[in-house]
Amino acid sequence: MAKLVVDRKILIVGLGLIGGSYAEGLRRYGFEVGAITRSEESIDFALEKGIIDHGQTEVTEEYVSQFDIVIFALYPQTFRDWIRDYQHCFKSGAVISDVTGVKGTVVEEIQTMLRSDVEFVPAHPMAGREVYGVKNSNADIFAGANFIITPTEKNSPQAVELIYSMAQLLGFKKISSITPQEHDEMIGFLSQLTHCIAVALMTCKDDATSLARYSGDSFRDLTRIARINENMWTELFLENKDQLLKQMTLFMEKFSELKEALQNADEESLKDMMRLSSERRAHFDK
Amino acid sequence: MAKLVVDRKILIVGLGLIGGSYAEGLRRYGFEVGAITRSEESIDFALEKGIIDHGQTEVTEEYVSQFDIVIFALYPQTFRDWIRDYQHCFKSGAVISDVTGVKGTVVEEIQTMLRSDVEFVPAHPMAGREVYGVKNSNADIFAGANFIITPTEKNSPQAVELIYSMAQLLGFKKISSITPQEHDEMIGFLSQLTHCIAVALMTCKDDATSLARYSGDSFRDLTRIARINENMWTELFLENKDQLLKQMTLFMEKFSELKEALQNADEESLKDMMRLSSERRAHFDK
Repeated sequence: MAKLVVDRKILIVGLGLIGGSYAEGLRRYGFEVGAITRSEESIDFALEKGIIDHGQTEVTEEYVSQFDIVIFALYPQTFRDWIRDYQHCFKSGAVISDVTGVKGTVVEEIQTMLRSDVEFVPAHPMAGREVYGVKNSNADIFAGANFIITPTEKNSPQAVELIYSMAQLLGFKKISSITPQEHDEMIGFLSQLTHCIAVALMTCKDDATSLARYSGDSFRDLTRIARINENMWTELFLENKDQLLKQMTLFMEKFSELKEALQNADEESLKDMMRLSSERRAHFDK
Repeated sequence: MAKLVVDRKILIVGLGLIGGSYAEGLRRYGFEVGAITRSEESIDFALEKGIIDHGQTEVTEEYVSQFDIVIFALYPQTFRDWIRDYQHCFKSGAVISDVTGVKGTVVEEIQTMLRSDVEFVPAHPMAGREVYGVKNSNADIFAGANFIITPTEKNSPQAVELIYSMAQLLGFKKISSITPQEHDEMIGFLSQLTHCIAVALMTCKDDATSLARYSGDSFRDLTRIARINENMWTELFLENKDQLLKQMTLFMEKFSELKEALQNADEESLKDMMRLSSERRAHFDK
Protein backbone atom coordinates (compact mmCIF):
# COMPACT_ATOMS: atom_id res chain seq x y z
CA MET A 1 0.00 0.00 0.00
CA ALA A 2 1.42 3.37 -1.05
CA LYS A 3 1.76 5.73 1.87
CA LEU A 4 0.71 9.34 1.58
CA VAL A 5 3.80 11.41 1.97
CA VAL A 6 3.02 14.22 4.37
CA ASP A 7 5.07 16.76 2.44
CA ARG A 8 2.58 16.58 -0.41
CA LYS A 9 0.39 19.63 -0.67
CA ILE A 10 -3.34 19.12 -1.04
CA LEU A 11 -5.83 21.51 -2.62
CA ILE A 12 -9.55 21.31 -1.89
CA VAL A 13 -11.76 22.87 -4.57
CA GLY A 14 -15.19 23.67 -3.13
CA LEU A 15 -15.20 24.30 0.59
CA GLY A 16 -18.64 23.00 1.60
CA LEU A 17 -19.51 20.36 4.16
CA ILE A 18 -17.53 17.57 2.51
CA GLY A 19 -14.66 19.69 1.17
CA GLY A 20 -14.27 21.33 4.57
CA SER A 21 -14.35 17.98 6.35
CA TYR A 22 -11.64 16.61 4.03
CA ALA A 23 -9.53 19.70 4.70
CA GLU A 24 -9.91 19.40 8.44
CA GLY A 25 -9.16 15.68 8.46
CA LEU A 26 -6.09 15.98 6.24
CA ARG A 27 -4.71 18.92 8.14
CA ARG A 28 -4.94 16.89 11.37
CA TYR A 29 -2.39 14.55 9.81
CA GLY A 30 0.02 17.39 9.10
CA PHE A 31 -0.66 17.98 5.43
CA GLU A 32 -0.47 21.50 4.07
CA VAL A 33 -4.02 22.09 2.85
CA GLY A 34 -5.13 24.90 0.53
CA ALA A 35 -8.59 25.73 -0.74
CA ILE A 36 -10.30 27.41 -3.64
CA THR A 37 -13.95 28.25 -3.16
CA ARG A 38 -16.37 30.91 -4.37
CA SER A 39 -17.12 32.62 -1.10
CA GLU A 40 -14.58 34.76 0.71
CA GLU A 41 -16.54 34.13 3.89
CA SER A 42 -15.91 30.38 3.68
CA ILE A 43 -12.18 30.96 3.26
CA ASP A 44 -12.14 33.35 6.24
CA PHE A 45 -14.08 30.90 8.40
CA ALA A 46 -11.82 27.98 7.46
CA LEU A 47 -8.68 30.00 8.12
CA GLU A 48 -9.96 31.17 11.47
CA LYS A 49 -10.90 27.64 12.55
CA GLY A 50 -7.62 26.18 11.32
CA ILE A 51 -9.36 24.00 8.73
CA ILE A 52 -7.01 25.16 5.96
CA ASP A 53 -3.54 26.67 5.78
CA HIS A 54 -4.45 29.11 3.04
CA GLY A 55 -7.03 29.66 0.35
CA GLN A 56 -8.43 31.97 -2.27
CA THR A 57 -11.55 32.62 -4.29
CA GLU A 58 -9.77 33.09 -7.62
CA VAL A 59 -8.39 30.22 -9.66
CA THR A 60 -4.83 31.14 -10.58
CA GLU A 61 -2.13 28.99 -12.11
CA GLU A 62 0.36 30.33 -9.58
CA TYR A 63 -1.74 28.97 -6.71
CA VAL A 64 -3.06 25.71 -8.22
CA SER A 65 0.28 24.59 -9.66
CA GLN A 66 1.86 24.17 -6.22
CA PHE A 67 -0.42 21.23 -5.26
CA ASP A 68 0.33 17.51 -5.72
CA ILE A 69 -3.20 16.36 -4.95
CA VAL A 70 -6.41 18.22 -5.80
CA ILE A 71 -9.79 17.13 -4.42
CA PHE A 72 -12.92 18.43 -6.13
CA ALA A 73 -15.95 18.77 -3.86
CA LEU A 74 -18.26 20.40 -6.40
CA TYR A 75 -21.57 19.62 -8.08
CA PRO A 76 -21.05 17.48 -11.22
CA GLN A 77 -21.58 20.24 -13.79
CA THR A 78 -19.40 22.76 -11.93
CA PHE A 79 -16.70 20.09 -11.70
CA ARG A 80 -16.78 19.54 -15.49
CA ASP A 81 -16.68 23.29 -16.14
CA TRP A 82 -13.76 23.77 -13.78
CA ILE A 83 -11.68 21.09 -15.47
CA ARG A 84 -12.46 22.48 -18.93
CA ASP A 85 -11.60 26.05 -17.93
CA TYR A 86 -8.68 25.64 -15.54
CA GLN A 87 -6.92 22.33 -16.11
CA HIS A 88 -3.97 24.18 -17.59
CA CYS A 89 -3.26 25.32 -14.00
CA PHE A 90 -2.43 21.85 -12.63
CA LYS A 91 1.13 20.89 -11.77
CA SER A 92 2.38 18.19 -14.12
CA GLY A 93 2.00 14.81 -12.41
CA ALA A 94 -0.77 15.96 -10.08
CA VAL A 95 -3.38 13.44 -8.96
CA ILE A 96 -6.92 14.74 -8.79
CA SER A 97 -9.89 13.09 -7.12
CA ASP A 98 -13.48 14.02 -6.29
CA VAL A 99 -16.42 13.32 -4.02
CA THR A 100 -19.13 13.36 -6.70
CA GLY A 101 -22.18 11.22 -6.01
CA VAL A 102 -22.59 10.05 -9.63
CA LYS A 103 -19.83 8.51 -11.68
CA GLY A 104 -20.88 7.15 -15.08
CA THR A 105 -20.88 10.19 -17.34
CA VAL A 106 -18.78 12.46 -15.12
CA VAL A 107 -15.81 10.10 -14.91
CA GLU A 108 -15.75 9.42 -18.62
CA GLU A 109 -16.03 13.07 -19.59
CA ILE A 110 -13.40 14.27 -17.14
CA GLN A 111 -10.93 11.52 -18.00
CA THR A 112 -11.44 12.15 -21.71
CA MET A 113 -10.80 15.86 -21.57
CA LEU A 114 -8.05 15.77 -18.92
CA ARG A 115 -4.40 16.51 -19.75
CA SER A 116 -2.41 13.31 -20.12
CA ASP A 117 0.11 14.31 -17.42
CA VAL A 118 -2.58 14.59 -14.74
CA GLU A 119 -4.51 11.61 -13.39
CA PHE A 120 -8.11 11.58 -12.13
CA VAL A 121 -9.02 8.92 -9.56
CA PRO A 122 -12.81 9.04 -9.08
CA ALA A 123 -14.05 8.55 -5.52
CA HIS A 124 -17.24 8.80 -3.51
CA PRO A 125 -17.15 9.15 0.29
CA MET A 126 -20.43 7.73 1.58
CA ALA A 127 -20.92 10.29 4.30
CA GLY A 128 -23.00 13.41 4.67
CA ARG A 129 -25.28 15.44 6.84
CA GLU A 130 -28.54 17.33 6.41
CA VAL A 131 -26.61 20.54 6.98
CA TYR A 132 -24.38 22.28 4.51
CA GLY A 133 -21.38 24.49 4.22
CA VAL A 134 -17.91 24.64 5.70
CA LYS A 135 -19.38 25.90 8.98
CA ASN A 136 -20.79 22.43 9.57
CA SER A 137 -17.73 20.55 8.39
CA ASN A 138 -16.29 17.97 10.71
CA ALA A 139 -13.84 15.23 9.79
CA ASP A 140 -15.49 12.92 12.32
CA ILE A 141 -18.36 12.28 9.89
CA PHE A 142 -16.02 9.94 7.98
CA ALA A 143 -15.28 7.70 10.95
CA GLY A 144 -16.48 4.21 10.10
CA ALA A 145 -18.21 5.29 6.87
CA ASN A 146 -17.89 3.54 3.52
CA PHE A 147 -15.69 4.86 0.71
CA ILE A 148 -15.97 3.88 -2.94
CA ILE A 149 -13.26 4.28 -5.59
CA THR A 150 -14.31 3.79 -9.23
CA PRO A 151 -11.11 3.46 -11.24
CA THR A 152 -11.07 2.93 -15.00
CA GLU A 153 -8.45 1.54 -17.40
CA LYS A 154 -7.00 5.07 -17.49
CA ASN A 155 -5.90 4.83 -13.85
CA SER A 156 -2.54 3.67 -12.51
CA PRO A 157 -2.32 1.43 -9.44
CA GLN A 158 -0.11 4.04 -7.76
CA ALA A 159 -2.66 6.84 -8.01
CA VAL A 160 -5.50 4.56 -6.90
CA GLU A 161 -3.44 3.50 -3.87
CA LEU A 162 -2.77 7.11 -3.05
CA ILE A 163 -6.50 7.87 -2.82
CA TYR A 164 -7.04 4.61 -0.94
CA SER A 165 -4.47 5.68 1.65
CA MET A 166 -6.06 9.10 1.92
CA ALA A 167 -9.45 7.50 2.64
CA GLN A 168 -7.84 5.34 5.32
CA LEU A 169 -6.25 8.38 6.94
CA LEU A 170 -9.60 10.15 6.94
CA GLY A 171 -11.09 7.30 8.96
CA PHE A 172 -13.19 5.50 6.35
CA LYS A 173 -13.70 1.87 7.23
CA LYS A 174 -14.70 -0.18 4.20
CA ILE A 175 -12.95 1.10 1.11
CA SER A 176 -14.24 -0.59 -2.05
CA SER A 177 -13.29 -0.45 -5.67
CA ILE A 178 -16.03 -0.91 -8.31
CA THR A 179 -16.67 0.33 -11.85
CA PRO A 180 -18.39 3.69 -12.40
CA GLN A 181 -21.41 1.82 -13.79
CA GLU A 182 -21.66 -0.48 -10.77
CA HIS A 183 -21.33 2.58 -8.57
CA ASP A 184 -24.22 4.37 -10.24
CA GLU A 185 -26.50 1.36 -9.98
CA MET A 186 -25.59 0.84 -6.33
CA ILE A 187 -25.93 4.50 -5.41
CA GLY A 188 -29.11 4.83 -7.43
CA PHE A 189 -30.54 2.19 -5.17
CA LEU A 190 -28.92 2.85 -1.80
CA SER A 191 -28.82 6.62 -1.77
CA GLN A 192 -30.89 8.24 -4.52
CA LEU A 193 -33.90 5.93 -4.22
CA THR A 194 -33.95 6.38 -0.44
CA HIS A 195 -33.98 10.16 -0.87
CA CYS A 196 -36.88 9.81 -3.35
CA ILE A 197 -38.80 7.72 -0.83
CA ALA A 198 -38.18 10.22 1.97
CA VAL A 199 -39.27 13.17 -0.18
CA ALA A 200 -42.41 11.38 -1.41
CA LEU A 201 -43.33 10.33 2.13
CA MET A 202 -42.80 13.81 3.52
CA THR A 203 -44.98 15.42 0.85
CA CYS A 204 -47.96 13.07 1.38
CA LYS A 205 -49.71 15.06 4.11
CA ASP A 206 -50.25 18.77 4.62
CA ASP A 207 -50.25 19.01 8.36
CA ALA A 208 -46.64 18.40 9.33
CA THR A 209 -46.99 19.95 12.78
CA SER A 210 -49.63 17.51 13.89
CA LEU A 211 -47.78 14.60 12.28
CA ALA A 212 -44.78 15.45 14.46
CA ARG A 213 -47.02 15.27 17.51
CA TYR A 214 -48.02 11.67 16.87
CA SER A 215 -44.99 10.18 15.23
CA GLY A 216 -42.70 7.53 16.62
CA ASP A 217 -39.08 6.97 15.70
CA SER A 218 -39.83 5.14 12.47
CA PHE A 219 -41.29 8.11 10.62
CA ARG A 220 -38.55 10.35 11.93
CA ASP A 221 -35.89 7.91 10.72
CA LEU A 222 -37.43 7.48 7.29
CA THR A 223 -37.69 11.21 6.70
CA ARG A 224 -34.42 12.46 8.19
CA ILE A 225 -33.05 12.80 4.64
CA ALA A 226 -36.24 14.54 3.47
CA ARG A 227 -34.47 17.77 4.42
CA ILE A 228 -32.64 17.93 1.20
CA ASN A 229 -30.58 20.40 -0.82
CA GLU A 230 -32.83 20.64 -3.85
CA ASN A 231 -30.18 21.98 -6.20
CA MET A 232 -27.60 19.34 -5.47
CA TRP A 233 -29.98 16.38 -5.44
CA THR A 234 -31.90 17.44 -8.54
CA GLU A 235 -28.60 17.60 -10.39
CA LEU A 236 -27.51 14.22 -9.03
CA PHE A 237 -30.87 12.62 -9.89
CA LEU A 238 -30.78 13.94 -13.45
CA GLU A 239 -27.16 12.86 -13.94
CA ASN A 240 -28.19 9.32 -13.00
CA LYS A 241 -31.67 9.43 -14.43
CA ASP A 242 -31.87 6.07 -16.23
CA GLN A 243 -30.37 4.10 -13.39
CA LEU A 244 -32.49 5.85 -10.76
CA LEU A 245 -35.68 5.27 -12.75
CA LYS A 246 -34.79 1.58 -12.88
CA GLN A 247 -34.36 1.45 -9.09
CA MET A 248 -37.60 3.36 -8.53
CA THR A 249 -39.45 0.87 -10.72
CA LEU A 250 -37.94 -2.05 -8.80
CA PHE A 251 -39.01 -0.54 -5.49
CA MET A 252 -42.54 0.13 -6.73
CA GLU A 253 -42.84 -3.49 -7.82
CA LYS A 254 -41.90 -4.75 -4.36
CA PHE A 255 -44.12 -2.21 -2.64
CA SER A 256 -47.04 -3.22 -4.88
CA GLU A 257 -46.38 -6.87 -4.08
CA LEU A 258 -46.72 -6.11 -0.38
CA LYS A 259 -49.82 -4.01 -1.02
CA GLU A 260 -51.42 -6.82 -2.97
CA ALA A 261 -50.67 -9.32 -0.22
CA LEU A 262 -52.38 -6.98 2.24
CA GLN A 263 -55.31 -6.40 -0.11
CA ASN A 264 -55.79 -10.16 -0.32
CA ALA A 265 -55.25 -10.60 3.43
CA ASP A 266 -52.56 -13.04 2.39
CA GLU A 267 -50.91 -13.60 5.77
CA GLU A 268 -48.28 -16.01 4.56
CA SER A 269 -46.97 -13.70 1.82
CA LEU A 270 -46.84 -10.79 4.25
CA LYS A 271 -44.89 -12.85 6.76
CA ASP A 272 -42.56 -14.20 4.06
CA MET A 273 -41.61 -10.70 2.97
CA MET A 274 -41.10 -9.61 6.57
CA ARG A 275 -38.94 -12.63 7.34
CA LEU A 276 -36.80 -12.01 4.25
CA SER A 277 -36.50 -8.35 5.10
CA SER A 278 -35.48 -9.07 8.70
CA GLU A 279 -32.91 -11.61 7.60
CA ARG A 280 -31.35 -9.24 5.08
CA ARG A 281 -31.36 -6.26 7.39
CA ALA A 282 -29.39 -8.28 9.91
CA HIS A 283 -26.34 -7.99 7.62
CA PHE A 284 -26.25 -4.27 8.31
CA ASP A 285 -25.80 -4.64 12.02
CA LYS A 286 -22.70 -6.80 11.79
CA MET B 1 -55.09 16.49 36.73
CA ALA B 2 -55.80 13.33 38.72
CA LYS B 3 -52.72 12.05 40.46
CA LEU B 4 -51.85 8.39 40.48
CA VAL B 5 -52.05 7.18 44.01
CA VAL B 6 -49.03 5.06 44.72
CA ASP B 7 -50.91 2.57 46.85
CA ARG B 8 -52.79 1.40 43.74
CA LYS B 9 -51.68 -1.97 42.51
CA ILE B 10 -50.92 -2.38 38.83
CA LEU B 11 -51.06 -5.58 36.80
CA ILE B 12 -49.23 -5.97 33.50
CA VAL B 13 -50.66 -8.64 31.21
CA GLY B 14 -48.06 -9.67 28.63
CA LEU B 15 -44.50 -9.24 29.77
CA GLY B 16 -42.74 -8.42 26.50
CA LEU B 17 -40.65 -5.41 25.59
CA ILE B 18 -43.40 -2.85 26.21
CA GLY B 19 -45.10 -4.61 29.11
CA GLY B 20 -41.75 -5.12 30.81
CA SER B 21 -40.79 -1.49 30.26
CA TYR B 22 -44.10 -0.31 31.78
CA ALA B 23 -43.52 -2.56 34.76
CA GLU B 24 -39.99 -1.31 35.29
CA GLY B 25 -41.00 2.34 34.95
CA LEU B 26 -43.98 2.06 37.29
CA ARG B 27 -42.05 0.15 39.90
CA ARG B 28 -39.42 2.90 39.93
CA TYR B 29 -42.20 5.16 41.23
CA GLY B 30 -43.04 2.84 44.07
CA PHE B 31 -46.08 1.07 42.66
CA GLU B 32 -46.64 -2.54 43.48
CA VAL B 33 -46.50 -4.21 40.06
CA GLY B 34 -47.67 -7.70 39.24
CA ALA B 35 -47.57 -9.57 35.96
CA ILE B 36 -49.34 -12.30 34.08
CA THR B 37 -47.55 -13.73 31.08
CA ARG B 38 -47.33 -17.06 29.30
CA SER B 39 -43.72 -17.90 29.95
CA GLU B 40 -42.41 -18.84 33.37
CA GLU B 41 -38.98 -17.76 32.18
CA SER B 42 -40.16 -14.18 31.66
CA ILE B 43 -41.63 -14.07 35.16
CA ASP B 44 -38.39 -15.44 36.63
CA PHE B 45 -36.29 -12.94 34.72
CA ALA B 46 -38.49 -10.02 35.73
CA LEU B 47 -38.47 -11.06 39.36
CA GLU B 48 -34.73 -11.48 39.38
CA LYS B 49 -34.17 -8.05 37.80
CA GLY B 50 -36.66 -6.35 40.07
CA ILE B 51 -38.94 -5.40 37.18
CA ILE B 52 -42.03 -6.79 38.98
CA ASP B 53 -42.99 -7.54 42.55
CA HIS B 54 -44.72 -10.80 41.71
CA GLY B 55 -46.24 -12.61 38.78
CA GLN B 56 -47.74 -15.82 37.47
CA THR B 57 -48.45 -17.64 34.24
CA GLU B 58 -51.99 -18.66 35.16
CA VAL B 59 -54.93 -16.26 35.08
CA THR B 60 -56.75 -16.66 38.40
CA GLU B 61 -59.50 -14.52 39.90
CA GLU B 62 -57.68 -14.53 43.21
CA TYR B 63 -54.63 -12.88 41.64
CA VAL B 64 -56.28 -10.53 39.09
CA SER B 65 -58.91 -9.20 41.49
CA GLN B 66 -56.34 -7.49 43.72
CA PHE B 67 -55.33 -4.94 41.04
CA ASP B 68 -56.76 -1.44 40.56
CA ILE B 69 -55.15 -0.88 37.17
CA VAL B 70 -54.50 -3.52 34.50
CA ILE B 71 -52.37 -2.81 31.44
CA PHE B 72 -52.66 -5.16 28.46
CA ALA B 73 -49.53 -5.47 26.36
CA LEU B 74 -50.77 -8.21 24.03
CA TYR B 75 -51.42 -8.66 20.32
CA PRO B 76 -54.92 -7.45 19.38
CA GLN B 77 -56.54 -10.87 19.01
CA THR B 78 -55.01 -12.21 22.20
CA PHE B 79 -56.24 -9.11 24.02
CA ARG B 80 -59.83 -9.69 22.79
CA ASP B 81 -59.68 -13.36 23.77
CA TRP B 82 -58.35 -12.52 27.23
CA ILE B 83 -61.15 -10.07 27.96
CA ARG B 84 -63.77 -12.53 26.72
CA ASP B 85 -62.40 -15.40 28.80
CA TYR B 86 -61.22 -13.71 32.00
CA GLN B 87 -63.02 -10.42 32.53
CA HIS B 88 -64.94 -11.96 35.41
CA CYS B 89 -61.63 -11.86 37.32
CA PHE B 90 -61.34 -8.05 37.44
CA LYS B 91 -61.90 -6.17 40.69
CA SER B 92 -65.03 -4.04 40.47
CA GLY B 93 -64.04 -0.46 39.59
CA ALA B 94 -60.75 -1.46 37.96
CA VAL B 95 -59.40 0.68 35.13
CA ILE B 96 -57.82 -1.24 32.28
CA SER B 97 -55.67 0.16 29.50
CA ASP B 98 -53.56 -1.22 26.67
CA VAL B 99 -50.66 -0.53 24.32
CA THR B 100 -52.24 -1.89 21.15
CA GLY B 101 -51.07 -0.34 17.88
CA VAL B 102 -54.52 -0.35 16.24
CA LYS B 103 -57.62 1.06 17.82
CA GLY B 104 -60.70 1.17 15.59
CA THR B 105 -62.15 -2.32 15.86
CA VAL B 106 -60.32 -3.39 19.03
CA VAL B 107 -61.58 -0.50 21.15
CA GLU B 108 -65.16 -0.89 20.05
CA GLU B 109 -65.20 -4.64 20.58
CA ILE B 110 -63.55 -4.52 23.99
CA GLN B 111 -65.71 -1.68 25.27
CA THR B 112 -68.84 -3.42 24.01
CA MET B 113 -68.15 -6.74 25.70
CA LEU B 114 -66.62 -5.33 28.91
CA ARG B 115 -68.41 -5.49 32.28
CA SER B 116 -70.06 -2.18 33.11
CA ASP B 117 -68.18 -1.83 36.42
CA VAL B 118 -64.75 -1.88 34.71
CA GLU B 119 -63.51 0.89 32.42
CA PHE B 120 -61.18 0.50 29.41
CA VAL B 121 -59.08 3.55 28.47
CA PRO B 122 -57.39 2.79 25.13
CA ALA B 123 -53.82 4.00 24.78
CA HIS B 124 -50.87 3.67 22.42
CA PRO B 125 -47.33 4.45 23.58
CA MET B 126 -45.36 5.46 20.47
CA ALA B 127 -42.16 3.75 21.46
CA GLY B 128 -40.50 0.53 20.51
CA ARG B 129 -37.33 -1.24 19.54
CA GLU B 130 -36.26 -3.80 16.96
CA VAL B 131 -35.70 -6.23 19.81
CA TYR B 132 -38.34 -8.12 21.72
CA GLY B 133 -39.12 -9.65 25.05
CA VAL B 134 -38.85 -8.66 28.68
CA LYS B 135 -35.08 -9.20 28.53
CA ASN B 136 -34.81 -6.07 26.40
CA SER B 137 -37.28 -4.02 28.40
CA ASN B 138 -36.15 -0.64 29.60
CA ALA B 139 -38.36 2.18 30.83
CA ASP B 140 -35.97 4.72 29.29
CA ILE B 141 -37.42 4.00 25.83
CA PHE B 142 -40.43 6.14 26.84
CA ALA B 143 -38.41 9.25 27.65
CA GLY B 144 -39.53 12.02 25.32
CA ALA B 145 -41.72 9.73 23.19
CA ASN B 146 -45.29 10.47 22.10
CA PHE B 147 -48.31 8.90 23.81
CA ILE B 148 -51.79 8.70 22.33
CA ILE B 149 -55.03 8.14 24.26
CA THR B 150 -58.14 7.34 22.21
CA PRO B 151 -61.11 7.75 24.55
CA THR B 152 -64.69 7.18 23.45
CA GLU B 153 -68.03 8.34 24.86
CA LYS B 154 -67.85 5.33 27.17
CA ASN B 155 -64.93 6.81 29.09
CA SER B 156 -65.02 8.97 32.20
CA PRO B 157 -62.72 12.00 32.55
CA GLN B 158 -61.35 10.49 35.78
CA ALA B 159 -60.15 7.27 34.17
CA VAL B 160 -58.68 9.13 31.17
CA GLU B 161 -56.77 11.40 33.55
CA LEU B 162 -55.49 8.39 35.42
CA ILE B 163 -53.91 6.98 32.25
CA TYR B 164 -52.68 10.45 31.30
CA SER B 165 -50.89 10.72 34.66
CA MET B 166 -49.41 7.29 34.24
CA ALA B 167 -47.99 8.28 30.83
CA GLN B 168 -46.48 11.39 32.40
CA LEU B 169 -44.87 9.34 35.14
CA LEU B 170 -43.42 6.98 32.56
CA GLY B 171 -41.67 9.92 30.90
CA PHE B 172 -43.78 10.42 27.77
CA LYS B 173 -43.57 13.95 26.48
CA LYS B 174 -46.45 14.78 24.18
CA ILE B 175 -49.62 13.09 25.37
CA SER B 176 -52.46 13.51 22.89
CA SER B 177 -56.09 12.54 22.85
CA ILE B 178 -57.73 11.64 19.51
CA THR B 179 -60.51 9.34 18.34
CA PRO B 180 -59.77 5.68 17.59
CA GLN B 181 -60.46 6.41 13.90
CA GLU B 182 -58.06 9.36 13.78
CA HIS B 183 -55.50 7.19 15.54
CA ASP B 184 -55.75 4.43 12.95
CA GLU B 185 -55.40 6.84 10.04
CA MET B 186 -52.42 8.56 11.67
CA ILE B 187 -50.71 5.33 12.66
CA GLY B 188 -51.48 3.77 9.27
CA PHE B 189 -49.49 6.59 7.78
CA LEU B 190 -46.76 7.27 10.35
CA SER B 191 -45.98 3.79 11.53
CA GLN B 192 -47.50 1.05 9.37
CA LEU B 193 -46.74 2.66 6.00
CA THR B 194 -43.15 3.30 7.06
CA HIS B 195 -42.74 -0.35 8.00
CA CYS B 196 -44.17 -1.35 4.59
CA ILE B 197 -41.67 0.92 2.85
CA ALA B 198 -38.76 -0.47 4.85
CA VAL B 199 -39.77 -4.08 4.14
CA ALA B 200 -40.28 -3.42 0.42
CA LEU B 201 -36.94 -1.63 0.17
CA MET B 202 -35.10 -4.36 2.01
CA THR B 203 -36.52 -7.09 -0.21
CA CYS B 204 -35.56 -5.38 -3.52
CA LYS B 205 -32.06 -6.82 -3.86
CA ASP B 206 -30.66 -10.25 -3.17
CA ASP B 207 -27.14 -9.41 -2.15
CA ALA B 208 -27.54 -7.80 1.26
CA THR B 209 -23.91 -8.32 2.26
CA SER B 210 -22.58 -6.29 -0.61
CA LEU B 211 -25.25 -3.64 -0.12
CA ALA B 212 -24.04 -3.19 3.44
CA ARG B 213 -20.55 -2.62 2.09
CA TYR B 214 -21.56 0.36 -0.03
CA SER B 215 -24.37 1.92 1.93
CA GLY B 216 -24.38 5.27 3.63
CA ASP B 217 -26.51 6.31 6.58
CA SER B 218 -29.63 6.95 4.53
CA PHE B 219 -30.23 3.32 3.58
CA ARG B 220 -29.44 2.18 7.08
CA ASP B 221 -31.92 4.69 8.53
CA LEU B 222 -34.68 3.78 6.11
CA THR B 223 -34.34 0.07 6.79
CA ARG B 224 -33.75 0.02 10.55
CA ILE B 225 -37.38 -1.03 11.02
CA ALA B 226 -37.08 -3.66 8.28
CA ARG B 227 -36.08 -6.05 11.09
CA ILE B 228 -39.62 -6.73 11.99
CA ASN B 229 -41.63 -9.17 14.10
CA GLU B 230 -43.65 -10.75 11.30
CA ASN B 231 -46.38 -12.13 13.54
CA MET B 232 -47.11 -8.89 15.36
CA TRP B 233 -46.93 -6.64 12.31
CA THR B 234 -48.95 -8.92 10.05
CA GLU B 235 -51.69 -8.91 12.67
CA LEU B 236 -51.50 -5.11 13.05
CA PHE B 237 -51.56 -4.59 9.26
CA LEU B 238 -54.58 -6.82 8.81
CA GLU B 239 -56.42 -5.18 11.72
CA ASN B 240 -55.96 -1.82 10.00
CA LYS B 241 -56.14 -3.07 6.44
CA ASP B 242 -58.44 -0.48 4.85
CA GLN B 243 -56.72 2.49 6.38
CA LEU B 244 -53.25 1.16 5.60
CA LEU B 245 -54.19 0.44 1.98
CA LYS B 246 -55.36 4.05 1.71
CA GLN B 247 -52.05 5.34 3.03
CA MET B 248 -50.08 3.03 0.73
CA THR B 249 -52.04 4.34 -2.25
CA LEU B 250 -51.38 7.94 -1.21
CA PHE B 251 -47.65 7.25 -0.92
CA MET B 252 -47.52 5.52 -4.31
CA GLU B 253 -49.19 8.53 -5.89
CA LYS B 254 -46.57 10.91 -4.52
CA PHE B 255 -43.74 8.56 -5.40
CA SER B 256 -45.08 8.24 -8.95
CA GLU B 257 -45.32 12.02 -9.19
CA LEU B 258 -41.64 12.30 -8.34
CA LYS B 259 -40.80 9.49 -10.77
CA GLU B 260 -42.67 11.22 -13.55
CA ALA B 261 -40.90 14.51 -12.88
CA LEU B 262 -37.58 12.66 -13.15
CA GLN B 263 -38.70 10.82 -16.28
CA ASN B 264 -39.53 14.20 -17.89
CA ALA B 265 -36.33 15.77 -16.55
CA ASP B 266 -38.67 18.34 -15.02
CA GLU B 267 -36.19 20.16 -12.80
CA GLU B 268 -38.67 22.63 -11.36
CA SER B 269 -41.13 19.98 -10.19
CA LEU B 270 -38.32 17.97 -8.62
CA LYS B 271 -37.07 21.03 -6.76
CA ASP B 272 -40.59 22.01 -5.70
CA MET B 273 -41.16 18.63 -4.09
CA MET B 274 -37.77 18.76 -2.38
CA ARG B 275 -38.40 22.25 -1.06
CA LEU B 276 -41.80 21.24 0.31
CA SER B 277 -40.34 18.12 1.85
CA SER B 278 -37.50 20.06 3.51
CA GLU B 279 -39.87 22.65 4.88
CA ARG B 280 -42.21 20.05 6.36
CA ARG B 281 -39.44 17.91 7.79
CA ALA B 282 -38.16 20.94 9.68
CA HIS B 283 -41.19 20.67 12.00
CA PHE B 284 -39.82 17.40 13.33
CA ASP B 285 -36.60 18.93 14.56
CA LYS B 286 -38.25 21.52 16.75
